[in-house]
Amino acid sequence: MSHQLWGGRFAEPTAAEMREFNDSFRFDRRLAEADIAGSIAYARALARSGIITEQQRDALITGLEQVHREFAESTFIAREGDEDIHTAVERRLFELIGPVAGMLHTGRSRNDQVATDFRLWCLWACDQLEEAVSALQGRLVDQAEAHVETLMPGYTHLQRAQPITFAQWCLAYATMLARDRERLRDCRRRTAVLPLGASALAGNALGLDRESLLQDLPFERLSENSLDAVSDRDFAAELLFCCTLLGAHLSRLAEDVILYSTAEFGFLTLADAYSTGSSLMPQKRNPDSMELLRGKAGRLLGDLVALLTVIKGIPLAYNKDLQEDKEPVFDAVDTLLLALRVAAGAVATWQVHTERMAAALDDAMLATDLADELVRLGMPFREAHSAVGRLVRRAEELCIPLRELPAEELAAAVPALDIQRYRSLFDHRRSVERRSVIGGTAPTAVRAQIARLRQQEV
Amino acid sequence: MSHQLWGGRFAEPTAAEMREFNDSFRFDRRLAEADIAGSIAYARALARSGIITEQQRDALITGLEQVHREFAESTFIAREGDEDIHTAVERRLFELIGPVAGMLHTGRSRNDQVATDFRLWCLWACDQLEEAVSALQGRLVDQAEAHVETLMPGYTHLQRAQPITFAQWCLAYATMLARDRERLRDCRRRTAVLPLGASALAGNALGLDRESLLQDLPFERLSENSLDAVSDRDFAAELLFCCTLLGAHLSRLAEDVILYSTAEFGFLTLADAYSTGSSLMPQKRNPDSMELLRGKAGRLLGDLVALLTVIKGIPLAYNKDLQEDKEPVFDAVDTLLLALRVAAGAVATWQVHTERMAAALDDAMLATDLADELVRLGMPFREAHSAVGRLVRRAEELCIPLRELPAEELAAAVPALDIQRYRSLFDHRRSVERRSVIGGTAPTAVRAQIARLRQQEV
Amino acid sequence: MSHQLWGGRFAEPTAAEMREFNDSFRFDRRLAEADIAGSIAYARALARSGIITEQQRDALITGLEQVHREFAESTFIAREGDEDIHTAVERRLFELIGPVAGMLHTGRSRNDQVATDFRLWCLWACDQLEEAVSALQGRLVDQAEAHVETLMPGYTHLQRAQPITFAQWCLAYATMLARDRERLRDCRRRTAVLPLGASALAGNALGLDRESLLQDLPFERLSENSLDAVSDRDFAAELLFCCTLLGAHLSRLAEDVILYSTAEFGFLTLADAYSTGSSLMPQKRNPDSMELLRGKAGRLLGDLVALLTVIKGIPLAYNKDLQEDKEPVFDAVDTLLLALRVAAGAVATWQVHTERMAAALDDAMLATDLADELVRLGMPFREAHSAVGRLVRRAEELCIPLRELPAEELAAAVPALDIQRYRSLFDHRRSVERRSVIGGTAPTAVRAQIARLRQQEV
Amino acid sequence: MSHQLWGGRFAEPTAAEMREFNDSFRFDRRLAEADIAGSIAYARALARSGIITEQQRDALITGLEQVHREFAESTFIAREGDEDIHTAVERRLFELIGPVAGMLHTGRSRNDQVATDFRLWCLWACDQLEEAVSALQGRLVDQAEAHVETLMPGYTHLQRAQPITFAQWCLAYATMLARDRERLRDCRRRTAVLPLGASALAGNALGLDRESLLQDLPFERLSENSLDAVSDRDFAAELLFCCTLLGAHLSRLAEDVILYSTAEFGFLTLADAYSTGSSLMPQKRNPDSMELLRGKAGRLLGDLVALLTVIKGIPLAYNKDLQEDKEPVFDAVDTLLLALRVAAGAVATWQVHTERMAAALDDAMLATDLADELVRLGMPFREAHSAVGRLVRRAEELCIPLRELPAEELAAAVPALDIQRYRSLFDHRRSVERRSVIGGTAPTAVRAQIARLRQQEV
Repeated sequence: MSHQLWGGRFAEPTAAEMREFNDSFRFDRRLAEADIAGSIAYARALARSGIITEQQRDALITGLEQVHREFAESTFIAREGDEDIHTAVERRLFELIGPVAGMLHTGRSRNDQVATDFRLWCLWACDQLEEAVSALQGRLVDQAEAHVETLMPGYTHLQRAQPITFAQWCLAYATMLARDRERLRDCRRRTAVLPLGASALAGNALGLDRESLLQDLPFERLSENSLDAVSDRDFAAELLFCCTLLGAHLSRLAEDVILYSTAEFGFLTLADAYSTGSSLMPQKRNPDSMELLRGKAGRLLGDLVALLTVIKGIPLAYNKDLQEDKEPVFDAVDTLLLALRVAAGAVATWQVHTERMAAALDDAMLATDLADELVRLGMPFREAHSAVGRLVRRAEELCIPLRELPAEELAAAVPALDIQRYRSLFDHRRSVERRSVIGGTAPTAVRAQIARLRQQEV
Repeated sequence: MSHQLWGGRFAEPTAAEMREFNDSFRFDRRLAEADIAGSIAYARALARSGIITEQQRDALITGLEQVHREFAESTFIAREGDEDIHTAVERRLFELIGPVAGMLHTGRSRNDQVATDFRLWCLWACDQLEEAVSALQGRLVDQAEAHVETLMPGYTHLQRAQPITFAQWCLAYATMLARDRERLRDCRRRTAVLPLGASALAGNALGLDRESLLQDLPFERLSENSLDAVSDRDFAAELLFCCTLLGAHLSRLAEDVILYSTAEFGFLTLADAYSTGSSLMPQKRNPDSMELLRGKAGRLLGDLVALLTVIKGIPLAYNKDLQEDKEPVFDAVDTLLLALRVAAGAVATWQVHTERMAAALDDAMLATDLADELVRLGMPFREAHSAVGRLVRRAEELCIPLRELPAEELAAAVPALDIQRYRSLFDHRRSVERRSVIGGTAPTAVRAQIARLRQQEV
Repeated sequence: MSHQLWGGRFAEPTAAEMREFNDSFRFDRRLAEADIAGSIAYARALARSGIITEQQRDALITGLEQVHREFAESTFIAREGDEDIHTAVERRLFELIGPVAGMLHTGRSRNDQVATDFRLWCLWACDQLEEAVSALQGRLVDQAEAHVETLMPGYTHLQRAQPITFAQWCLAYATMLARDRERLRDCRRRTAVLPLGASALAGNALGLDRESLLQDLPFERLSENSLDAVSDRDFAAELLFCCTLLGAHLSRLAEDVILYSTAEFGFLTLADAYSTGSSLMPQKRNPDSMELLRGKAGRLLGDLVALLTVIKGIPLAYNKDLQEDKEPVFDAVDTLLLALRVAAGAVATWQVHTERMAAALDDAMLATDLADELVRLGMPFREAHSAVGRLVRRAEELCIPLRELPAEELAAAVPALDIQRYRSLFDHRRSVERRSVIGGTAPTAVRAQIARLRQQEV
Repeated sequence: MSHQLWGGRFAEPTAAEMREFNDSFRFDRRLAEADIAGSIAYARALARSGIITEQQRDALITGLEQVHREFAESTFIAREGDEDIHTAVERRLFELIGPVAGMLHTGRSRNDQVATDFRLWCLWACDQLEEAVSALQGRLVDQAEAHVETLMPGYTHLQRAQPITFAQWCLAYATMLARDRERLRDCRRRTAVLPLGASALAGNALGLDRESLLQDLPFERLSENSLDAVSDRDFAAELLFCCTLLGAHLSRLAEDVILYSTAEFGFLTLADAYSTGSSLMPQKRNPDSMELLRGKAGRLLGDLVALLTVIKGIPLAYNKDLQEDKEPVFDAVDTLLLALRVAAGAVATWQVHTERMAAALDDAMLATDLADELVRLGMPFREAHSAVGRLVRRAEELCIPLRELPAEELAAAVPALDIQRYRSLFDHRRSVERRSVIGGTAPTAVRAQIARLRQQEV
């Protein structure tokens, strides 16, 4: 007996290359646990709704639990014809419990079944991702805690801009990740909508009690339109978007760490455990972990684009194009779970060269502080900015640090400012301490950020 | 006097092609209202924090209100050197109120200013979009209300699957749009975070009271890390994602309407007002509105990809690459606001050919109902499916409708089923009515959907 | 002894998750054949350039041939530490021939080695793809040949436009594929550039004779700048673009076939071998092969976007991000090779319903021919178009076919046209025959297209 | 009289929002010159084919030349109803020459007309782009010529790898651009295919002599299938791909220049003309030109994705979705033409700090040369690599430059190597000179590259 789920009206077998093109078991077998959980819940609901007997229900559940064990213990043996996880499970169930297996699909279609399975998997993925993001956040906050007082140059346009603390830099990334977690939770909420009972497209016709399904499965509410329920992949697209944006954040972190690990910057050294060498050049220690992290942003965006393009312009309701939904999601989630672990490990073990950071603080980075001082002396900011700009240019022309500008140069340019007072302004630590506004780089403001982020840890 | 905001330390002027490459006033002038609102709030906060006097504040506000009027009345005259909206406004303010204008930028950078302006614009865009989506939903629900009892074929794989109501089809799209609205609201919440006070990257150093800014601007909370605040464009990426997914939904609606408007389907006729003709073929009436709607999905995805690629791999904090954030967002929002109006107009005015829909209901679409009947007679669903599949094949071979299968054929294939009972099952309306589960296509279930959606209208 | 290629300057081992993140052997083992071919050629060149002895060369080649056999016969046993194909081969070579294995890498880096390997693989892929495209073209031309005289409606905007031949429709797709082949050949030409000898980034320092390498490897010319040679992935991006555009063509073919396979159009029936059924609805025969074909367009675009995003903004020369180049290319090529086989099989075995095509030819599709007749009678085309448009509208209002318009209606609208002549114009076949211009749909023009395409078959 | 080209069969006017959605004149007016050139050629062909008289032809041409002047002199006045450039030109032609204007469209459709116009524009764009790329190449080669002997660190993984010449770095980018030019020429060849005569979809029915059209228009051959001719946008997609890859190359150049312009690297200073300042920080000189260049890579990829997504899954032949083809192409070409000018200007005017480059050459960058020396002494490369790796680690532990390693350390690790010989190997210039292989970084190899590139200049 064939276990294909749909052969009755067909005269010829499927072509070999078509089977290879069509079959999804090689990747959707990952849904085994979700598929069986969904089927057990469905068997219960069928019984509750009086569609099957309690004995039939129990036979189904016993059989499904056995299939589940076989997957869990990797003893499940695939057969030719197992075109997808649903077929494989039902085929095996039939082998185990006989014709009663054929009742499980009563009023259910693979259309609502696969939507249920995939959503279950995505719920799990959201949780795993949030946990992994939280762990990376934790390592960044650890670093911040250790470096609340460590000064370094802050950059805009990759030019030295103003002094900041290394803690502030770490917390910038932790803050991005906080948004990622929030987005994952919103995505999770929209994923926790149960399509089961939508059947192929028009809704179950056998009086199924859909509400009761919510008791047995971790969904929050029921889908509200059957055509939409079987063809909606918004949850997958949204998860891919969350992954892509998270990946973009990681790519920014990676870029900064790659820069800071250069001989030229020298702020950080990645541990050997997260570096690799060169097959030709014996001296090389390369930040491969970070380069891969940066590169993964492309892969994740590719996954997102793939699904969004698949969805474009397809009619209602289910179309086989939608089988292209799973591989990008699996790839994106696998990629990120590993990437997040690598990132957390790298962050936790890097060496911070505070002396190189300190050495990179130059006088010109305090130009804004000079201008602020002129403002305090009553000059409108725009004029102060212009005046200080000229001082900077003059010092550059003279090839001297800004603070060493001769008194007469200062007097000519900014008569209001006394040379002693001027020189006393070149204090990077004080500059940082003045930036104590909410979210600022001053140690006090940084400590408040740390406290807030610590509370969000899972 | 030059009004460039940064010339002091520069010896040479900007190259002409560089100015063209760099200047953003041609597109960011759309931020004028947001920019001025932000500046007025900032002036108030400067005064509240004791950084400027109340008189200076009043001068600034009076001037800014005048600049605002000039933009509102389109009397604002751009000058060479107005490299962006911020420069243009400050330049004009200086012309109007003199050197006190130069105080406005105290402790503020274009980095936190533009992030504030752009977020304000995006908040407005979220609201506009949600309203436009709601209007289209309304028109779809109107159609559903008028067609609760109208039968048509439901399709999967574009093959006739089961009978549904036209209302159910309309509501599938209304349900997608409900998710779009929910996503827009989540995006709005994450957009309503005020970066002002982050200054260039390290936070305001003058004791600015950031909390007080929330009184004057429609933000819900303050950004929490200054480096992140000036370089975060997640809100824009998320808005673009919402737009892209919304656009994908519209592309699916468009595809269906294009199909249903063909001579072959013949279910719908778009009004002349949403159709166009051919320059060569006099008979043509083309559903251009829907084809454009379908095509816009590409444009929107392009906008999303553009921004996500810009963000990839850039270091902290602000980099000029981020100037590429606004055009895709403006393009996506403009595109969708217009597309949604067109879609709503087309939906409200199309003609529904219920007789063509009815004529397309064939016997084979009731095959599932036949199988369900066999299940009721005690046959496991999988066997019932197979038996009915063979009946369908046999009818096809005999070139007769399924219901006209000779009694002996039926008896041979499915002895359990009586020929009278068999023939009585070919009732499309009853098939629909049986699908009364939550979210089903039965009129009762459809009316519940309509009621729920009506409550959500804005 | 460890066989890692770079451990000397490292104190700590690589972290487990980092190894998983970094190692590429699971996917780059596909380069085994290319890698060994490249190494054999390199060993020869080393000997020719006097860097190793002939005996050393022979030992290396004998060992490499053995490794090759192990891969070919699937007896190669991977070891922990085989981080990529290059390491695995060198490690195994060492086991087989001892320390002389260590000479193979003289003056060579994995940077130029992997670029060489990957280009070799892509050359093979270009050839395979062109062959598969040619096969599909052949099946389309077969269909065209069989249907030179078969009339069907031609569509624009999915509205019936003018009668065409089914052959013309088949040849439209064959013509797209001809461009794809041309693009693949151009891509191949740019791929056939040998980077070997660029070493890590600066060029070989040992007097290697790069020209001589061309004798042993199927490349056409040498790379011209060593920094570029190791970091250039244009060839991969271009191959992905060729794949994406080819995939877009297949998605258009798929869309048309899906439409033509509906009950409503009814022009084509896919063979059972390329269709599948439904797990719930016994009557269903779904064009899954074509829906998957359509969906793959998304996957291919995703692959292209992935690589282009990876390349964006990375500095010279090699960066580990580039390890993300292979998976999208492998995925795209595998996907297309299979998709092309499926498409060719489906095209070769579909049933063409010429009677349904004929039945779909309506009168209004000849409106352009009517206008052309008026032009022949001296009316400017624009007026003729307008007059015929009014006739069409009038016939629609009267609910009659265009040819049955009463004589008085015709006389009123277009006095110049005699009613007999008018009615005689409603001849779809003649309409087609008149379109005999180069590239037109007339049988004569179609036969010329067929002849041209037949000449291009491989 | 209305000048809409298709009103005859319509009863109601187009809705206002639909007109805004549908009309393309605001962007396709850029095709005016191409449109008129195509129309003049078409008028000639109509006359040659005996479809219109020579007098009618002359009237058409005279009128069209007048319309052309009006566009060229910006005196063309748009009217409501000018829905696209084709309509606008025909409307104006009618005003100028009366009803004979209505003959121009005989046997022509906007479908073949717009395909012709757009291809003409793209041919022009290919030429402009190639010229602009060549100019940038020229500036890079100028820099190379000036710096054949300038040493700097070459990087892989952004870690110092081996010494190279600055010339070699410049030429890496020039070499990428050479490929871009080659791709543009291939794209141009495929663009130079004339669709005119395909009419709406089925081919001209009036005996038009298509071959003769090639005399009057800069195309190389005729399209070969009419359905394909009107719906093919491969040329636009291919141009967008060329633009995207070119943009990716520019983004890499930009990244390197941004890095080299940091205080930390200090290798380059952009001219003031290509830099900008900060509104807040008086000292800043930011490489905005390069950051924008890097960011444009996203915009260009977005344009490519937009069109490829539009094309996905649309049926034959023309669909209005294809109107979305022009804006991404216009945007990409405009963006790149300006970006290339900016890049060329920036390259031509930057300051090169050869002393900073020299200072960045450290001892460890010669580790490969040490290993090569050991190879020369008979050690297999792999052992040599490992031995030198240990030396590097030892020097690092001792915090001394590699060359200062004590004799006893050397003797212990590499007995074969004499300390004098060892120390003499630390010569960066000689290291560079040894890399004289084709494409290498040695001055001799660099000069050969320069000569080759100079020959390719346009």
